Amino acid sequence: MKWQKDQFLYEGKAKNIYTAKGEKDFLVEDFLVLEHKDFLTAFNGEKKEQLEGKGQINLKISSFIFKYLKEKEIPNHYVDDDGDRNMLTRKCEILPLEVVVRNLLAGSTAKKFALKDGTPITQPLVEFFYKNDDLSDPFINEAQATIVLKIAEEDQLKQIKQKALVINKILVDLFDKANICLVDFKLEFGTLPSGELILADEISPDSCRLWDKQTQEKMDKDRFRLNLGDVLKFYKEIYNRIRGKDCGRKK
Amino acid sequence: MKWQKDQFLYEGKAKNIYTAKGEKDFLVEDFLVLEHKDFLTAFNGEKKEQLEGKGQINLKISSFIFKYLKEKEIPNHYVDDDGDRNMLTRKCEILPLEVVVRNLLAGSTAKKFALKDGTPITQPLVEFFYKNDDLSDPFINEAQATIVLKIAEEDQLKQIKQKALVINKILVDLFDKANICLVDFKLEFGTLPSGELILADEISPDSCRLWDKQTQEKMDKDRFRLNLGDVLKFYKEIYNRIRGKDCGRKK
Repeated sequence: MKWQKDQFLYEGKAKNIYTAKGEKDFLVEDFLVLEHKDFLTAFNGEKKEQLEGKGQINLKISSFIFKYLKEKEIPNHYVDDDGDRNMLTRKCEILPLEVVVRNLLAGSTAKKFALKDGTPITQPLVEFFYKNDDLSDPFINEAQATIVLKIAEEDQLKQIKQKALVINKILVDLFDKANICLVDFKLEFGTLPSGELILADEISPDSCRLWDKQTQEKMDKDRFRLNLGDVLKFYKEIYNRIRGKDCGRKK
Repeated sequence: MKWQKDQFLYEGKAKNIYTAKGEKDFLVEDFLVLEHKDFLTAFNGEKKEQLEGKGQINLKISSFIFKYLKEKEIPNHYVDDDGDRNMLTRKCEILPLEVVVRNLLAGSTAKKFALKDGTPITQPLVEFFYKNDDLSDPFINEAQATIVLKIAEEDQLKQIKQKALVINKILVDLFDKANICLVDFKLEFGTLPSGELILADEISPDSCRLWDKQTQEKMDKDRFRLNLGDVLKFYKEIYNRIRGKDCGRKK
């Protein structure tokens, strides 16, 4: 399929959104182009930085993972990419919900319970946050999502939780083979005009916590959050490892 | 049943806990005495005040409500009271869980979503908070309660939610007849040695938001939190109204 980005629609923190145009039979209303920017932001946008090449490596990682998930029969919005910064996606209505899956406790949840980063749990934990910058993306329960915010029906939330746990299993395996521990990650879902729920947004080191299995070294956006440096080096390392160029183990 | 309080066990913010002793056949290990104190605290204990007579009026209100709930076949820890400050209760193991039911949004949840106090919702909302002073009683979801904190099994939480909603229905009716709007309230549950789940702690203007249905005037602990004065006057008014001495309507 030949396509290119067309009209600018709006600017997100890490991506710009455009309409797409293509050859005949290409239905403009079915697609969007996500341009992956070099911008890194953290702490609800309070810390930000331009990092040349970040958009390109994230496009590669996110595309790789979406294609991998498609092979595993997880419907998602990925259609194609230009190998640079642009991903052609199926247009869907994004639910204002950040779905976080945790395999180890870290970040906000570890802090809330005064537990150390890396605290193990006996099974994966799913959390919902309301995607709303003005409210700083508050943590919510399912009743708040359905009754107060009316983001989704109870059944849909159940379906989202189940999907998130299946995706987690697939990704834990994928990263495990790359000698990386998937500590936690954030997903977003959208609905197609048919009502079908699909995985959307991105899956990249911007949206995951990824630790080297041997050294425990952080390989994700926490390097930026915590000023650990070498952000891009680790992002590239993740890409090389998951596509099998290097499993990261010392030879 | 003749009983009196015996040995001091520990001090809570609003209640002191004692063992109970009684006549022969009285099994000490089955009971506790809750002495209701005059102390009012708010904001996780940061604001506090002694208010003479508060313990006595709260004992009256809480006893009235527990007896009322017992009539409606809601098992709870109330056994008897001395008409002053002391309630004889069935000893149970309290779950470290604050169960909040909301009929209108107010307080922390209204604030979180930048909504006005008194915002209506289409059905009652149940929320769980982890009862832990050191962590400032954080808001949690069910997965955190079961997987991280291991407070209760999933089924038990479901049962707690159902019970809380049934109790809500009963109390909304009770207060409605007293011309009072039950905005929200906090429950605590405990388990008997048999494993049976029962309602425990207290139900009083310290643990409920109660607004006069006609004037919208606050009649609960928010009068103390917000320095509105006349705390005890309103607590007494609540007691008079729910036991049917005065429905509060202007004649």
